[in-house]
Amino acid sequence: MAMSRQEEEDLVDWLSPLFLGSYAENNELLEKVLVELLRDHVYWRRNIHPEDRPQIPVLAETGPEYRRFVGRMKTELHGLTARLKNSAPFFNPRYIGHMASDLLLPGLIAQLVTTLYNPNHVTDEASPVTLPLELDLGRQLAAMSGLGTDPEREPCAWGHATSGGTIANDEALWYFRAVRYWPLAAARAMRQADFEPGRLGHGPADFPRAPDRELFNLSIDTVIRLRRELMADIDRRLDRRQARRLAEAIEGERVETLGMAEFHLRHPELGTPAVLVPDTAHYSWEKALKLLGLGSAQLEPVAVTERMRLDAAALERRIGELQARGRPILAVVGILGTTEFGSIDPIHEIVAARQRWRRKGLDFAIHVDAAWGGYLASMFHRPDGTLLGRDEMRRGFHLFPSEPVYKAFAALRHVDSLTVDPHKLGYVPFGCGAYVARNRGMTDFISQRAAYVFEDADTIPDAEYERRFRNLGQYILEGSKPGAAAAGAWLSHRVLPLDADHFGRLIAETIRNCEYFFEHIDQLRDELAGIARVVMPFEPDTNLVCLAINPEGNRSLARMNRFGRRLYARLSVGENVDIHSREFFGSRTLVHRHTLGGRAAERLMAELDLDPDTFVEEPDDSGEQADSVFLLRHTLMNPWLSGREEGLNYLDRYCRYLAQLVRHELAH
Amino acid sequence: MAMSRQEEEDLVDWLSPLFLGSYAENNELLEKVLVELLRDHVYWRRNIHPEDRPQIPVLAETGPEYRRFVGRMKTELHGLTARLKNSAPFFNPRYIGHMASDLLLPGLIAQLVTTLYNPNHVTDEASPVTLPLELDLGRQLAAMSGLGTDPEREPCAWGHATSGGTIANDEALWYFRAVRYWPLAAARAMRQADFEPGRLGHGPADFPRAPDRELFNLSIDTVIRLRRELMADIDRRLDRRQARRLAEAIEGERVETLGMAEFHLRHPELGTPAVLVPDTAHYSWEKALKLLGLGSAQLEPVAVTERMRLDAAALERRIGELQARGRPILAVVGILGTTEFGSIDPIHEIVAARQRWRRKGLDFAIHVDAAWGGYLASMFHRPDGTLLGRDEMRRGFHLFPSEPVYKAFAALRHVDSLTVDPHKLGYVPFGCGAYVARNRGMTDFISQRAAYVFEDADTIPDAEYERRFRNLGQYILEGSKPGAAAAGAWLSHRVLPLDADHFGRLIAETIRNCEYFFEHIDQLRDELAGIARVVMPFEPDTNLVCLAINPEGNRSLARMNRFGRRLYARLSVGENVDIHSREFFGSRTLVHRHTLGGRAAERLMAELDLDPDTFVEEPDDSGEQADSVFLLRHTLMNPWLSGREEGLNYLDRYCRYLAQLVRHELAH
Repeated sequence: MAMSRQEEEDLVDWLSPLFLGSYAENNELLEKVLVELLRDHVYWRRNIHPEDRPQIPVLAETGPEYRRFVGRMKTELHGLTARLKNSAPFFNPRYIGHMASDLLLPGLIAQLVTTLYNPNHVTDEASPVTLPLELDLGRQLAAMSGLGTDPEREPCAWGHATSGGTIANDEALWYFRAVRYWPLAAARAMRQADFEPGRLGHGPADFPRAPDRELFNLSIDTVIRLRRELMADIDRRLDRRQARRLAEAIEGERVETLGMAEFHLRHPELGTPAVLVPDTAHYSWEKALKLLGLGSAQLEPVAVTERMRLDAAALERRIGELQARGRPILAVVGILGTTEFGSIDPIHEIVAARQRWRRKGLDFAIHVDAAWGGYLASMFHRPDGTLLGRDEMRRGFHLFPSEPVYKAFAALRHVDSLTVDPHKLGYVPFGCGAYVARNRGMTDFISQRAAYVFEDADTIPDAEYERRFRNLGQYILEGSKPGAAAAGAWLSHRVLPLDADHFGRLIAETIRNCEYFFEHIDQLRDELAGIARVVMPFEPDTNLVCLAINPEGNRSLARMNRFGRRLYARLSVGENVDIHSREFFGSRTLVHRHTLGGRAAERLMAELDLDPDTFVEEPDDSGEQADSVFLLRHTLMNPWLSGREEGLNYLDRYCRYLAQLVRHELAH
Repeated sequence: MAMSRQEEEDLVDWLSPLFLGSYAENNELLEKVLVELLRDHVYWRRNIHPEDRPQIPVLAETGPEYRRFVGRMKTELHGLTARLKNSAPFFNPRYIGHMASDLLLPGLIAQLVTTLYNPNHVTDEASPVTLPLELDLGRQLAAMSGLGTDPEREPCAWGHATSGGTIANDEALWYFRAVRYWPLAAARAMRQADFEPGRLGHGPADFPRAPDRELFNLSIDTVIRLRRELMADIDRRLDRRQARRLAEAIEGERVETLGMAEFHLRHPELGTPAVLVPDTAHYSWEKALKLLGLGSAQLEPVAVTERMRLDAAALERRIGELQARGRPILAVVGILGTTEFGSIDPIHEIVAARQRWRRKGLDFAIHVDAAWGGYLASMFHRPDGTLLGRDEMRRGFHLFPSEPVYKAFAALRHVDSLTVDPHKLGYVPFGCGAYVARNRGMTDFISQRAAYVFEDADTIPDAEYERRFRNLGQYILEGSKPGAAAAGAWLSHRVLPLDADHFGRLIAETIRNCEYFFEHIDQLRDELAGIARVVMPFEPDTNLVCLAINPEGNRSLARMNRFGRRLYARLSVGENVDIHSREFFGSRTLVHRHTLGGRAAERLMAELDLDPDTFVEEPDDSGEQADSVFLLRHTLMNPWLSGREEGLNYLDRYCRYLAQLVRHELAH
């Protein structure tokens, strides 16, 4: 549904104060608030033991050493800013390349100001007042995803900032391994200590002697409860010293202690656990499996559909195959907004598959890599946290959200953990990713100290978690970490809450711009008719669009790719490229033969009028074949893309420029 | 040697412009430069396609939506700064607790300003101009440590920023594993492919059939050369397709592909590799071994001396034991400035031990965790990079550097990699650690893509590394990362080069303050004579000092510890503690029974007049025993500690306050 004139004006009003702006329209606001808070910091300093004599002499600034230093500093700063001025102009609506845009003023200012105070969130001893904000940031993101954050009800979610999405993905696997390997360690230690636990409320009836495969196939929640019950049972049945010994013996049998090699030697019947990811997964997943010693061969890629979404049927087949081969599954990863295409995996199908397989005694953890798409969840929730109906949501769009996309977001509350990057679609500066877990009980399995202190009860009180997270560095992959990044994201969400009426409004505009691009691509197609074929290989799920452009008459994929690279060369930045020479800024990607199914590959080749025999897994030396299709990739996250000038918005102008570029490149 | 009056005045002149200052004396300088560069950014924005119509209406700021948003933003920012004002006042010389102090103005300003441009150093496509600065930061830190950075000479060092020291430590082990496991994978793949390489210049004579233990015990440099030679040989002897197959087969045999479990199953004679760390190592090392799937049981702690330095004799014994038990050694880690005591491990002894063991066919990589002490290396080098003589250095100090400390720093150029944290003794904001490797050839083993492109030569040209590092995210643990942090550290080093005449001067002042504290502790001891015993358990190597204080007549360690905690409660910050109620800010640590050798423990108990039987590994329930000694810990990194008021400097005043506190606590 198109917006009325009034709605458009309202939107401009609403958007106006959010960013500095492409013309830096809000420069006075930014400068005023920043200077005010800088001065506030200055006078804060003076109010801590004001009786102390200032150490720097009042006339210091007149001295030659002082002036030399300031001179050197300014010279170097000038050198730096001179370089910075050839940066990719992320803030500008002409930038539709990588996942970066302008920065939300509240988050930017909060981060800059907090940097002056420089809290370190490794422990609250170095950040007594801001570490709780980071934990609150975790709750904000958890609530946005539909996870429970009420400390009085289990499971209660928790989360924290990371330096980026890669670390959050690593952390997800680190946590899954810690929890899911634990029962095997506990059973072995109990057998060796001849300890017979009482009847526990969760897990197998005969815990110490249950087969390893059964112990591995317990859900995250079950293992958490099982551990608490066992620890309480040990505490009841053994004296303090014996209990401590047994707890140490369990620690000694864990994979974290023994390492992967020795643990699997002791549990030969377990098999090597696989991690299933869609073919579209970011390369950080391969890196994660290498890092953790799981091995990239354990990364089982699952085929994707023609829409670049994980194929639920293929997932089902893959799980069946693994089960038949006796290989356990550590986790299935779904992507919410793939890096290359913005596509949304059917999270609901992954959740449903788990339900089905659980009945057959097979379990796996589910992580959602929502580094890109996590913030889209803000559009799906009312301010009171309830989920909007799909019909209600669709009123604001032409196509969004498709049924599978809607269901994927609605299913987020069932997954075990998520990666969400505030420094992407959260519009805060780089250096802020986040890890969010549905059940904070997972942290019972992570600490650099053995848990000798038992609880009498089989629940852990909220205060214990609160206490625990004050030593944040003990429960996360990183150690010393900037409070400023977390404070920036936290404050941004305070000003623009993560629901459909606030933050979601901003994100909705990116979706609408994408729909506009999608619907107007025909114009570009028509304009280039007879000159080049323009194909959008995948209907966009969210706010990323890819285009392939093949000069008319060309039948070779490799040639088309070379042509695409020439176009990209005019849209890209570089150390030796003057950014002022660029009309627009794009990015590019490759889609490999093995990612596209046979049918999708055929269809795409046909649409582009390319010889399908030039799209092969192993190209020959002819220079005609290629193993991947080169695509221009567009991230449409700047909310001002719809801004018009002489009736044309930035996307119209981009298309016009692209047509001109194609003609120009074909003529030269 | 004491400073002359003139020298003191010169130092104050020199120090004056470096920081904002405890009275924010340099507030005008900071504000002026910051606002200037903010405006410069604003006008930069306006110069990118100035023909575009500004999107935000000129009258936007008068509208009700706009004003509501600004109001909400200000309210939230006020709430944040209200909290921040109860932050630990790191900047103040009264803060001598954790490893944090005031921030160097050049680095602070550079980071704040770069944040406005928001470069992402994952790839130069998102940071065309600042990513090279991060690589230059790596060179600055490498050169400070004495490593070669000339691209024309092998080995050439490289380094990059990390979010903190923990990630840098993880990365060190990740790289070591990649390199040192590689020959075993290559040999196995060659055997299976029946490939016979020609004669190679490095490694064992019969590479494919060399025993795994021999292949594991090759130096980092040897493996790097060996791989290049083999790849060139493969390229010469096989056609393109066969060569690619063999390269893939080698990749397929690597531990990164197979995982730890399967790799060790295929190489049962290798044994589980150990990582040796001193007993004083930071807990992040345990975390690293858990993360990488090596297992914390493979962390072999080595005893430390009474000075809290790694005991070279104990290291030698431990290596011998491991060799006798058939266990290979992945790495030995030395600490340059332990977190708790600032002590400096004898890096030269580790290097010498490796030389000796190499002759016996045993090799290990050496990593130095210089997260804290790395910047001390700046004091040891002249601006031309040459090492200062010890005698020359000692002129500026009373005691520093002791011979072992001097030798440790002089030996840094022989180690394989280092962790250095600019956000600690580099005085830049949190979120900036660094990883530095002596030989950038290690990156030949790390990429998320298999290396199908071979080089004809057995060397890799500089341009190839330059090209490679432009895709930084492929060669490091993290992905998207803030260019602002790296730019801040880089610029700081440009203004204050990392040598004895510049940055080293600042660090030297921290050492002198530590010497002052050390030499004046007798006054505190005398003042409390008959009231409490004050003991400095370890003579400081650098700029950290710990104190134990035992009330006269008390013989129980547990009681002394409880008393120490009461003192600490008056020196610590917290969410519910008004920082204005604090005179000074300290920190605390525990030294465990197993870390202190028997003799050192006895000596310490005697000095404190404590019953040695109350210091035990497993305390009973009496409340008299403890397994560790509670210490007040002081980080003396604020360069203004020597600032005097009425003849007393901050350290004098701290001692006076501490005496008063002891009396007060004893009276209540």
